[in-house]
Amino acid sequence: MDRNYNLGIIGATGAVGQELIHFIHERNFPCAQIRLFASARSAGKKIEYMGKSWTVEEARPESFCDLDLAIFSAGGSTSKKLAPEAVERGCLVIDNSSAFRMDPKVPLVVPEINAQASTQHEGIIANPNCTTIVALMGLYPLHRAFGLKRFFAATYQAVSGTGAAAIYELEEQVKAWALGNSVSPEVYPHPIAFNLLPHVDAFLENGYTKEEMKMQNESRKIMKLAGIQASTTCVRVPVFRAHSVVINAEFNAPVDLDVARQAITDFSGSELVDEPENGQYPMPIDFAEKEKCGVGRMRRDLVFENGITLWVVGDQLWKGAALNAIQIVEWMHENGHLKVMPKLI
Amino acid sequence: MDRNYNLGIIGATGAVGQELIHFIHERNFPCAQIRLFASARSAGKKIEYMGKSWTVEEARPESFCDLDLAIFSAGGSTSKKLAPEAVERGCLVIDNSSAFRMDPKVPLVVPEINAQASTQHEGIIANPNCTTIVALMGLYPLHRAFGLKRFFAATYQAVSGTGAAAIYELEEQVKAWALGNSVSPEVYPHPIAFNLLPHVDAFLENGYTKEEMKMQNESRKIMKLAGIQASTTCVRVPVFRAHSVVINAEFNAPVDLDVARQAITDFSGSELVDEPENGQYPMPIDFAEKEKCGVGRMRRDLVFENGITLWVVGDQLWKGAALNAIQIVEWMHENGHLKVMPKLI
Repeated sequence: MDRNYNLGIIGATGAVGQELIHFIHERNFPCAQIRLFASARSAGKKIEYMGKSWTVEEARPESFCDLDLAIFSAGGSTSKKLAPEAVERGCLVIDNSSAFRMDPKVPLVVPEINAQASTQHEGIIANPNCTTIVALMGLYPLHRAFGLKRFFAATYQAVSGTGAAAIYELEEQVKAWALGNSVSPEVYPHPIAFNLLPHVDAFLENGYTKEEMKMQNESRKIMKLAGIQASTTCVRVPVFRAHSVVINAEFNAPVDLDVARQAITDFSGSELVDEPENGQYPMPIDFAEKEKCGVGRMRRDLVFENGITLWVVGDQLWKGAALNAIQIVEWMHENGHLKVMPKLI
Repeated sequence: MDRNYNLGIIGATGAVGQELIHFIHERNFPCAQIRLFASARSAGKKIEYMGKSWTVEEARPESFCDLDLAIFSAGGSTSKKLAPEAVERGCLVIDNSSAFRMDPKVPLVVPEINAQASTQHEGIIANPNCTTIVALMGLYPLHRAFGLKRFFAATYQAVSGTGAAAIYELEEQVKAWALGNSVSPEVYPHPIAFNLLPHVDAFLENGYTKEEMKMQNESRKIMKLAGIQASTTCVRVPVFRAHSVVINAEFNAPVDLDVARQAITDFSGSELVDEPENGQYPMPIDFAEKEKCGVGRMRRDLVFENGITLWVVGDQLWKGAALNAIQIVEWMHENGHLKVMPKLI
């Protein structure tokens, strides 16, 4: 690779930020310089990776003057405040928050599905919701084969989707239980150890959570299927890493399970693990820290005539967040769409 | 209550057997005598409850000579072998296994739904699958209100549904993790701590598990809805007790959420917990050792026009097994259908 970008990571101390640092090094993304940013609270903190050390800086509007590219993963309010400041300073933003995803001027990109959309940006490219990306690694290849009409999803979401504090909360609750003690929940409204919370993100007036609506709204935008209906229920489970989803999907064309399995195998984002009679199906412990998502339990749906029921598992910090963001910039770099921008300031 | 029955519990040392002993005492079922049975391996073992002590006997054909009533909870093969022996000896069998559930001569009973069916027995009455019972505590009141057409279910099943050994397995895996160790799984084919297994019961040729097919087949029989379609995916989760189910249901009549919530509230088997904006929804830790099942997250389905999405949680050892069995015999006793049978031997 022949271009060397000045890259900033905003939210470098968070769970996704750590994975971004990992991938930039592991995949040898051509950076002249990497700078790590976080809130004022974390500024000054040292981060080490592979023998290198960085001092975390406070993210401010001026931070973007020298950057070509910034990957934001510090939550919606930081993105809303600072992404426009970055764009104004000639810095391309890949935003992992939900702040701009449904903005018609902002491409929402999963490279295996709609990489080309990334070229239509006006300074910001949005990374989709983690659960939606994982589900689409199973659904999109089937959509290409049979034409997706509508689907149902029930999720099983790991605590690392909430962040580092939630991982710590599950650990502490389980350790306390092992000693016969209990600790009060702080991150979640109820205990998560040995429990289930049908509550991911804030509730909306229609009774769904924001997370549940993202599955329908973001799927529509990513796959350019404006009218597709998706009814989703999101549940937090006591798993550390990797989200899982049960999907019942209806298609326009008659389905063939052999064709469906081949479509999953041929798709670069997914791996078929589907020999249930031999105990082979995707599980969170096998798909944590794996780049591909696992698809299994594929069978004819019992309700929809042209339907397939499936089970998808994927590392929501990797393909669901950091890896997808890196794949976007890699695709743009390889296809000549990533520029070292002229600096305005 | 004025009748005094000689009651046997077959499988008394198991997870459901223990709950049967609890309910017989707590609900003061009129027994002249209670005898506890298990396999030859457990014979001689002492069981204590509320200051009383029993010696477990080996279950054999002759065991039923003096019994009016036997509740079986020792697995399908024991039921297949011994239930006919019990019937032959004039003993009424309430069978908690799947052995006879789909036999047209055997009533499959959830007292809140089809108590009257219990009067049509020929010696055996079947207790439905635990997950099906829990799901129906949410679905049946809605069926009465709007007429159920078809539904999807994704389950989150606790390890106690597998039995006492699985509870121990989750405990040991979590304790080992807390000490930085690991232990090999024995009950399940893969670790269950911090993991999910999309695998409950054996796989069938159509790619579904037996457990998944029970949801459709048993729902049809219990609600007398022969043609109803249900597509279910069953997942084991690292929760000790209480099964949870996401349901997307379509109805024949237009749905009204106020009517739906009132139907749940008015139904004796369920409790409405549905103020998600205040963090109120059913959770396993709240519905373990609770007689009613919790129903919440009720909202209009986004795919089905006449559809409702809901979340049901219930103690599968109680309403899903032991309590339902006891409620069957209570209803029969109170309605004069339980006889002290003439002994053949």
